[in-house]
Amino acid sequence: MTTDLLPVTDRTQVHRLRDRQVRDRAMLNEILDTGLVAHVALCLGGEPVLIPVAYARDGDRLLLHGSTGAGLLRAAAGGAPIAVAVTHIDGLVFAQSMFHSSMNYRSAVIFGTAQVLDGADRLAALHALSDHLMPGRWDEVRQPTARELTATLVLALPLDEASVKVRTGGPSEDGEEIGAWAGVLPLRLQTGEPILAVGISADVELPDSLLTLRRRLSTKRQPT
Amino acid sequence: MTTDLLPVTDRTQVHRLRDRQVRDRAMLNEILDTGLVAHVALCLGGEPVLIPVAYARDGDRLLLHGSTGAGLLRAAAGGAPIAVAVTHIDGLVFAQSMFHSSMNYRSAVIFGTAQVLDGADRLAALHALSDHLMPGRWDEVRQPTARELTATLVLALPLDEASVKVRTGGPSEDGEEIGAWAGVLPLRLQTGEPILAVGISADVELPDSLLTLRRRLSTKRQPT
Repeated sequence: MTTDLLPVTDRTQVHRLRDRQVRDRAMLNEILDTGLVAHVALCLGGEPVLIPVAYARDGDRLLLHGSTGAGLLRAAAGGAPIAVAVTHIDGLVFAQSMFHSSMNYRSAVIFGTAQVLDGADRLAALHALSDHLMPGRWDEVRQPTARELTATLVLALPLDEASVKVRTGGPSEDGEEIGAWAGVLPLRLQTGEPILAVGISADVELPDSLLTLRRRLSTKRQPT
Repeated sequence: MTTDLLPVTDRTQVHRLRDRQVRDRAMLNEILDTGLVAHVALCLGGEPVLIPVAYARDGDRLLLHGSTGAGLLRAAAGGAPIAVAVTHIDGLVFAQSMFHSSMNYRSAVIFGTAQVLDGADRLAALHALSDHLMPGRWDEVRQPTARELTATLVLALPLDEASVKVRTGGPSEDGEEIGAWAGVLPLRLQTGEPILAVGISADVELPDSLLTLRRRLSTKRQPT
């Protein structure tokens, strides 16, 4: 089995703290598969714009979607290069100096140009986007109408060029010792008690999609 | 007392789902004060670049910092316009169709040009950045050395132009009713058990900064 390595380009070469750069594609996939929201940036008239969006990974591409009325996504659909970031904050690192204090994180930034998906490709992508946030929900709810489909812009970005950085572990100090507590405060996204919508009977059981997602979020990921 | 409203510009005017646009500066401040990480975008050679960074709000400006070796921050220091996003995901909204399914979120995107801070301004900004993530930690650890200070690039971005969007509440459906469960699964960032660093005695008590941060993150924010 060959190791699947991410290529290093001018944009993805890490120039400082190089030991945080990760080239293993499996880490890119894990970061994308366990995140909920991505930030998408592009340049309009030479200036940056930036929005948070839902996304999903589908094999070797990233799926994004939004309203056809969203200006940034329309520009991306028109071929403007984009950068997409997914970031997990895994912990705060308390060192004995602020300079060595840090965060534990896993971040991926993907660069490229997206393609618009239509027809059966769009439908399949929406199913994948649905499964990413709410696994199995697609079959629990009514299917999209033709009008809803045409109101939705779906984009696919190849995962060809990505910068992946990971920091784990405790503070890395140069032997300073002032007797203060040092260590890591782990952080993770957790779910609260589900809130029933107005008009839904309390007798309706929680759906499998919600239970699956809750289980996924409560599964320990990796040591921080 | 006058209401402090954010100005609406071409960039901050929301064109779709306008009811999610918030112009109250207090909401901008709350989003910034309770977040941990920001995403900063800028254009280099006409293409977008994007990184996650630590930040803090200091009155009517946003403070950012990083290594003087970080290319994106150096470009921002050189006067390149930037966009900075802070996003909270507060819950997943399960509707009876995928089209109406959504996320509850609070997001702020700030546009502008940052200024480099030096000397006493830089020191004060680093103190504020420290207090944002680890309240009071500055006085628990050793002070920065001259060498550490010159290795740190600190930027201030005025909070003049910001797009703030908020979605709260349950699914907003057009009366569809297929009998499926519908509602909100709340999400929030939570802390785990602190992990002691190698070489620190287990007798050292947890610092006030960690306890304060943990209390802040466990304080209920707003209904989702």
